[in-house]
Amino acid sequence: MDLAKKLLKGDKRTLARLITLIENDDPHAIEVLKAIYNHTGKAHVIGITGPPGAGKSTLTDKLAKELNKRGKKIAIIAVDPTSPFTGGAILGDRVRMADLTNNPDVFIRSMGSRGTLGGLAKNTLGVIKAFDAYGMDYIFVETVGVGQSEVDIVKAVDTTILVMVPGLGDDIQAIKAGIMEIGDIFVVNKADLEGAHRTMMELETMLDFRQDEGWKPPVLEAIGRDNIGIGQICDNIEKHMDFLVKSDKLGYARRENVKKEIIEIAKGSMEVHIFNNNNKDNQLEILAERVANKEQDPYTASDEILKSFINRGIKND
Amino acid sequence: MDLAKKLLKGDKRTLARLITLIENDDPHAIEVLKAIYNHTGKAHVIGITGPPGAGKSTLTDKLAKELNKRGKKIAIIAVDPTSPFTGGAILGDRVRMADLTNNPDVFIRSMGSRGTLGGLAKNTLGVIKAFDAYGMDYIFVETVGVGQSEVDIVKAVDTTILVMVPGLGDDIQAIKAGIMEIGDIFVVNKADLEGAHRTMMELETMLDFRQDEGWKPPVLEAIGRDNIGIGQICDNIEKHMDFLVKSDKLGYARRENVKKEIIEIAKGSMEVHIFNNNNKDNQLEILAERVANKEQDPYTASDEILKSFINRGIKND
Repeated sequence: MDLAKKLLKGDKRTLARLITLIENDDPHAIEVLKAIYNHTGKAHVIGITGPPGAGKSTLTDKLAKELNKRGKKIAIIAVDPTSPFTGGAILGDRVRMADLTNNPDVFIRSMGSRGTLGGLAKNTLGVIKAFDAYGMDYIFVETVGVGQSEVDIVKAVDTTILVMVPGLGDDIQAIKAGIMEIGDIFVVNKADLEGAHRTMMELETMLDFRQDEGWKPPVLEAIGRDNIGIGQICDNIEKHMDFLVKSDKLGYARRENVKKEIIEIAKGSMEVHIFNNNNKDNQLEILAERVANKEQDPYTASDEILKSFINRGIKND
Repeated sequence: MDLAKKLLKGDKRTLARLITLIENDDPHAIEVLKAIYNHTGKAHVIGITGPPGAGKSTLTDKLAKELNKRGKKIAIIAVDPTSPFTGGAILGDRVRMADLTNNPDVFIRSMGSRGTLGGLAKNTLGVIKAFDAYGMDYIFVETVGVGQSEVDIVKAVDTTILVMVPGLGDDIQAIKAGIMEIGDIFVVNKADLEGAHRTMMELETMLDFRQDEGWKPPVLEAIGRDNIGIGQICDNIEKHMDFLVKSDKLGYARRENVKKEIIEIAKGSMEVHIFNNNNKDNQLEILAERVANKEQDPYTASDEILKSFINRGIKND
């Protein structure tokens, strides 16, 4: 439990090491996460989502800087599910953040799903815990896309900022409708572009249809690149947490998230067990061969995998 | 097995019913899918992916029309992971496709993850099988986003078309890098927009870094809205399948996909079992309460869930 102790003392190198262990699905990571678990729950976790091209990364950088100016410690997790294909995290370097990475109170980490067994969402939740126990005040989770895993990740945060951009066409309309309900704060970024005012109005109209109890999501203008509108967003982040605490919604939401997390971890563990077992007896390969040859259907094959898993139990790996 | 027989005879109403059963996680769907499984594998499955705003839907419609003109039967599955939040599939109506929906040889279905236990990817794979056994020649799987689940779905197809659009800024660059490796055919849509030529050149330069054996992904121009470049894309779809068959890559890729599918089904089944069991004894709720109160960590709670699952077996639900 050396790592856990060091992390709780605020050792930044231990933090980096723990995150790497989590990403590598190292069993030791779980031990550390168990040990630090009751030191978590203090950080305010903020999801940043929206379509590609909305300028989420730049905006997140500026928010981090502003909150840091207000005396806070900040983590940014850039989640990029497409990176399994690249052989290297796309956002890994994030050159434009060079001025932030030299700041001891700001920690940036990119996460891809390359080589990840058991899912990116599961690992992201682990990394959030590591940052939380370490003592970060704010943890930003920035996603590249708007797919299922991003939605899953965003559901696990306290405050979601939906970043839109003027005039990206019809598909964006569809996405807007789809993700409207997950936003707590709406930002129209690149507000100097044509159509910004119309996008603001559309968002406000759509929000009128939403049933919210006690919290009316603000629609804010920003130009991330020029640091315009950043303070206002930070104020609203703080306001939203106040609301969550006072309305007792924070406890309820976090309890619901815990349920999803338990299931995610269980599914991830099972996947790891299945792969480990396949390395021993080739069961998965043999079944896949049969299914590919149409000698068996994948549902029956899957039942066999589950039965083996059940018969083996979870201690034998 | 009535449904299976009717489906194999080409009954369109049965097809629609089976898809609904799959979406509703109805156990009867699995029985039908098992019965039809050795009638699958004939269709050419094509993934259409790319950033929002690239005009994927319009392009897919035009491709379907063109292939239909060539005497083929076509299914389009529009996958929209964001729809759990909307209380209704965003792409559900797809008004612009009205002329296609009246065509007896074209079948369009939108899939969201609302209420889906066990994952959207699992269900999409089931729907692909239903279309395949029914006798569709081409099955298009069109995704809204570029997240993990889309990537998972796209990995399960035979040919992936990556649709790009000129000048969407830096984030798009990142996504391009990330998804470059999954494309078999690249289309620069809306090629009448400024910057189209530059985007084509960028794509070609990036593709030079790719290690491909025997297949050099073409970069094609198109204007979906005006039906320009559609025939050429269809030709390349056919060419790619020829290549897969002749190089024996088709068999290999489908075998690899089967492995992933077996795991997906297993994870989905376990999730369903856990939820069903929770309805009986509240185990998940009780554990979540404890974890939320920091009396237990989620990893230990998850182990308990797995142990109960293992002890119960999979027959008791």
